[in-house]
Order: sequence, then structure tokens, then C-alpha cells
Amino acid sequence: MTNHYLEDLQVGQKIRAGSVTVSEDQILEFARQYDPQPMHADPQAAARGPFRGLIASGWHTAALVMRLAVDSNPLGSLPLLGLGVDGIEWPQPVRPGDTMQVEMEIVEIRPSQSRPSHGIVKIRSTARNQRGEIVFVVTPNCWVPRRPA
Amino acid sequence: MTNHYLEDLQVGQKIRAGSVTVSEDQILEFARQYDPQPMHADPQAAARGPFRGLIASGWHTAALVMRLAVDSNPLGSLPLLGLGVDGIEWPQPVRPGDTMQVEMEIVEIRPSQSRPSHGIVKIRSTARNQRGEIVFVVTPNCWVPRRPA
Repeated sequence: MTNHYLEDLQVGQKIRAGSVTVSEDQILEFARQYDPQPMHADPQAAARGPFRGLIASGWHTAALVMRLAVDSNPLGSLPLLGLGVDGIEWPQPVRPGDTMQVEMEIVEIRPSQSRPSHGIVKIRSTARNQRGEIVFVVTPNCWVPRRPA
Repeated sequence: MTNHYLEDLQVGQKIRAGSVTVSEDQILEFARQYDPQPMHADPQAAARGPFRGLIASGWHTAALVMRLAVDSNPLGSLPLLGLGVDGIEWPQPVRPGDTMQVEMEIVEIRPSQSRPSHGIVKIRSTARNQRGEIVFVVTPNCWVPRRPA
């Protein structure tokens, strides 16, 4: 696999990641471990609630999108390591049976002040459901090494 | 459980959540499902890598902190529902055996423009490890209903 170093990346560059379909069992399993609220972990209570059905924990959505990002190898075999995230939006819920498709775009590249061997690359990842509705947007700042001399 | 509506909350209010210790097995299980990079999912490769050992996926840390937040019932039995997050920081890695302690603070309360029955409450959650080092900061914007008339 070809590694993509800081010098190989460009603002505006897009990376299409794969897609994932999330089942009710997966939503329940994640929620019962990490976010056991009725809307995520109890199908009957969720059906009576404001969303009229079960919705995935937003952190489950984030984890599923991370998996798609990792599998798309945007930096080749270099690690995808986030220092932090500028923001997350969950504009629409993710429901059992929904399929998310993820697209990543490089929105900023800047040198690291603390480590001249690296830069910080802001990558916006947008997940859409099978109807094309945006369900998740995340904008992490990733450490990317310069090409070794 | 007493519900805490928008009118019951104050900027500056702090909520101490519980603590959680994360094992190597838990780090590996999460990583293999959601973030299968060597530094999170392969102890031997991680030992040779820049962190000199396994570190938790940042999304695993986020999920563990969400669980502590949910269990602390900051709104009583009202759901803790995030519209989005202003930012996340992962200043230090979380390693096997680390114990995280979480404190939440209400940093902003504003009315919802779109739904007068609700407000948006910004809650900053800070997780520290057993040495008091900050390992995770997240600032979600949560929907909170006004007290019913």
C-alpha cells in the first residue's frame, strides 16, 4: 500500500469511503454497553418516544464512520490519528436497517508548531443515509507525518 | 428520580460522574470492531509503535465517557440527547488499566430558536486519568425541555 504523507495531500481532495448497514441488534448491543438510554437500548420504549422507534447512539454512528474511514486507508498504511475534533453534527437519526455512505474531504492542511516533522490535516467526513440525508458530520484534526528525507 | 428541566439548570453547575477502569481486552474488542489500527488493536505492533504500547481508540474513550454521563443522570429521567458537539480533545492516550473519572460542567444555556419548548445546554465533560491528567474533553450541545406548564 502506498503511504500518503503530508506533501501528498491537497485541500479539496476527496476520499470516498465504503458503506455500512446497521442492524437493530448492533444498535442495541452498542447502546446497552455505552449509551443505555431507552431511545437507543429499549425498542418498546423507543417506539413510544419522540423518535417513534429505535435510533442509534450518536457515538455508535461515530464509531461506525471511524471504521469506514480506517478501511478506506486515506493515508495508506500510516495511522489515522486524531488530536481532536472541531465539531460533530447529528442532523438526522440513524435507524435499524439504515445504510450509511461516507465521503471524506481534506479541508485544511497546516504545519505543526510543536513537531516540524508533522502537519495537522483537517478532514471532514460526511455520512449520508440511503435517502441521501446527512446523518453525521465530523471534522477531526489528524497528525500526518512529512515524507522522510 | 427528579427530572431536571431547562429552568432547573444553571451555568457553572457541576455534575460529578463516576469512574471507569478500562482493560486491555475491552480496548481490543472495541478497536477490532470499530477502529482496527495497530496502535489500538494489535498489542505487539503497538509496543513497537510511537506510543510504546496499546492505546484506546479515541471513539472508545468517547463511548466510555458517554456511559458515565448517562449513569450520572444529570437530567433525572429526561434523555441526554446531543444535537452535536462543539469539540473533542484527546490530549493524552488512554492505556490498559487506566481509570477515568469524569466531571461535567454546564457552560452555556440558550433558548432554542426552532422549538420554544426546548433549550440547548452546552455541557463540557472532562475525563482525567488516575494521575489527574486530562485524557478527554467533549462539549456537546444537548436538547433540554422546559418544565411542562
